[in-house]
Amino acid sequence: MGSGPLTITAAAPLIRSGELTPRTLLEECLARIDAYEPAVQAWASLDRDGARQDADRLTDEIKRGQYRGPLHGIPIGVKDIIDVFDLRTGCGSKVWANSFARRDAPVVEQLRQAGAVILGKTVTTAYASFDPPVTRNPWNRERTPGGSSSGSAAAVACGMCLAALGTQTGGSITRPASYCGVASLKPTHGRVSLDGVLPLSPRLDHVGVMANSVADLLLLFRTIRVAPAEPTGLLHRLLDLTDFAPPGLPEPSMAAAFAACRDATAEKGWVWREHVLPPSFAEVRRNQYTLMAVGAAGYHGERFRRRPDDYPPWITKLIQHGLTCPAPEYDRVLRHHARFRAEIDAAFPDGWDCFATPATAGPAPAADTTGDPAFNSPWSYAGLPTVSLPIAWSDDRLPLSIQFVGRRGRDEQLLALAARFEADLGFEHRTLPL
Amino acid sequence: MGSGPLTITAAAPLIRSGELTPRTLLEECLARIDAYEPAVQAWASLDRDGARQDADRLTDEIKRGQYRGPLHGIPIGVKDIIDVFDLRTGCGSKVWANSFARRDAPVVEQLRQAGAVILGKTVTTAYASFDPPVTRNPWNRERTPGGSSSGSAAAVACGMCLAALGTQTGGSITRPASYCGVASLKPTHGRVSLDGVLPLSPRLDHVGVMANSVADLLLLFRTIRVAPAEPTGLLHRLLDLTDFAPPGLPEPSMAAAFAACRDATAEKGWVWREHVLPPSFAEVRRNQYTLMAVGAAGYHGERFRRRPDDYPPWITKLIQHGLTCPAPEYDRVLRHHARFRAEIDAAFPDGWDCFATPATAGPAPAADTTGDPAFNSPWSYAGLPTVSLPIAWSDDRLPLSIQFVGRRGRDEQLLALAARFEADLGFEHRTLPL
Repeated sequence: MGSGPLTITAAAPLIRSGELTPRTLLEECLARIDAYEPAVQAWASLDRDGARQDADRLTDEIKRGQYRGPLHGIPIGVKDIIDVFDLRTGCGSKVWANSFARRDAPVVEQLRQAGAVILGKTVTTAYASFDPPVTRNPWNRERTPGGSSSGSAAAVACGMCLAALGTQTGGSITRPASYCGVASLKPTHGRVSLDGVLPLSPRLDHVGVMANSVADLLLLFRTIRVAPAEPTGLLHRLLDLTDFAPPGLPEPSMAAAFAACRDATAEKGWVWREHVLPPSFAEVRRNQYTLMAVGAAGYHGERFRRRPDDYPPWITKLIQHGLTCPAPEYDRVLRHHARFRAEIDAAFPDGWDCFATPATAGPAPAADTTGDPAFNSPWSYAGLPTVSLPIAWSDDRLPLSIQFVGRRGRDEQLLALAARFEADLGFEHRTLPL
Repeated sequence: MGSGPLTITAAAPLIRSGELTPRTLLEECLARIDAYEPAVQAWASLDRDGARQDADRLTDEIKRGQYRGPLHGIPIGVKDIIDVFDLRTGCGSKVWANSFARRDAPVVEQLRQAGAVILGKTVTTAYASFDPPVTRNPWNRERTPGGSSSGSAAAVACGMCLAALGTQTGGSITRPASYCGVASLKPTHGRVSLDGVLPLSPRLDHVGVMANSVADLLLLFRTIRVAPAEPTGLLHRLLDLTDFAPPGLPEPSMAAAFAACRDATAEKGWVWREHVLPPSFAEVRRNQYTLMAVGAAGYHGERFRRRPDDYPPWITKLIQHGLTCPAPEYDRVLRHHARFRAEIDAAFPDGWDCFATPATAGPAPAADTTGDPAFNSPWSYAGLPTVSLPIAWSDDRLPLSIQFVGRRGRDEQLLALAARFEADLGFEHRTLPL
């Protein structure tokens, strides 16, 4: 596989032709796990035996001429709040750490049907909230991998698996993917099933994917989406939304990387324009936190009263915020949420492909937080699809990413745009060397 | 509550009027658990704190004049293959023993909404199959409580709870209820949700209820049924199906008790007639076992290969039977199953209420089996509703029960009949004394 990133797009034709067997690819991933896992701690549980059995079976299928498609034999990690049959769904909980799932979540079943090898469960922050996880950033072990899909991002960055499922309620897919230097898709809200997934706040919860190229994201999304929608034409016209961020953001390193990326792609024919969002955007961040908190309080509240020790500080704060939120305030947020979704849908000007912003405020901060979701949580609130991909390295050798925000339900179109952008930018993706 | 059985029907008006608080009733159940649980071992896990909190809340509701209905404050046990939020769903598995459920099964949610206090999880045989459980028959601790809903039946018989949820694929509700001397309902197939319940063989799986009177069964069924259907007129005319049993069954003690029951109710105006089933009935028992085995193999097969140590002998035999069943044989069984269900529906003569049979071959046998499901598995196969209730004590002081088999979807009518029969027979129900 060489020293470049392990992508599905590169591996699939080799698997189809028999040059690379699913078992050999799996063993390469397991060797990477042996090399990096002690320091990175990306996995809540591994299923080496089951993965080997599946890989052997999928290897035999290839020999018999039965090719399932581009995910055939691809090792995949699953965030530890998503059910995988007979593996633990620990949810970052002390009490639930040994809770075995009695069935696959539909999204996992879809991946299995497509030939994916489920390698294990990746570390989540406690209940998919903000408490720092054991996982460390593969590029700098003093830094956070981001959260809450911490293990998924770190595992893909290490090449421990070629893709991983994550979930996002605030910025839990885009942020860790960006901090770890891998590509990510948070689909339109509702386009991927949430069955068999621990809820945080169902109005905001999304299942999405991470991989080492945008093309890989499209292969994955085609497998897990609820219903297909094919992309339409591409305009190469981007609306720069950087200014929507709070004062002081993005940090200088990100601002510089984003500007350089904009200049480099403008030379390749991409047209950029600054854009301003509707006034209702001003309330989005606070309201997103309230929706997340009330959802978390609805699910966890009673249990939190009975088992406070099973809740670390950040999720405790979130639940308490939800428990103490007055109903009229929540009702106001719900009305804003409905209004904002309509306004943001109407805010896409004709003749432009999508919005573009930094994916994070800056490179991964120290490991005592999971970083700032300021650039991500508005899009969880909006329910719009987002794609992120690395565009640069910071001075301290950490990845920096861009984020595209697309029209509702047009995930495929956004992925086609991001793949073209990725090719034109020519940024060198990296996987950690073995 | 006196020394008679703890029934919902008796407790509900006392709770409504405030003479009996949910907390007091719960403490009586907990005292019974303290007294009997060391020898009977009915519970896989108990939630004393959670039940007390719920009982206190429900006590407060009564004080505020908020009465939810006859299940308000009633302590209920749930078979340990049915999900209860934040309690373990152990499924009789060693590996899954500490698997916490992330949500209530819909049937549990329905009970909670009706005011039931969920006291804990009752012992199941391994994966709801035939392997003898730790639970012992409360009336004789050398004897089996029956299975697979072993703990549910034993707990209700001890008055540890006033009702319990069980499940049946062969005879797993009727048999343990009858061996333990409590009433039971196995509803029509499909009339109670199986979501959040470990499957054994979905074509045959049923969720049902046990309690200390038929009237209680109706209160429970009204809460958990998917859609209501009210009973129509009652004829007091019963078709005796005892002869459908294999040669040599029922045992003499049951045959005598059944005949005496028939004579006693004939004196009260109940009309009895022998009835013969259609010829396709001859294959039912063997085919039921095949359907159960193929279902079990479908769910457990791969896991069984990987974790054989997590499967005791009876479920092992069942799964192996399913794994080795040739597909044409299975297809033949499926066709028989469809044909038989139509034939049995057409076999109810106009002018008669239902079929009646012994509920079991005899009293509970020794604890190294869970007993013979010969009188029950045909009705799981048929998917018809059955109600069982105690009618006599054997010479060795063990309960003997009758079973009524009703028309598809007419569960309410069957319960109305059984309640009237219970009243006319005047058999003295018993709960173990405290």
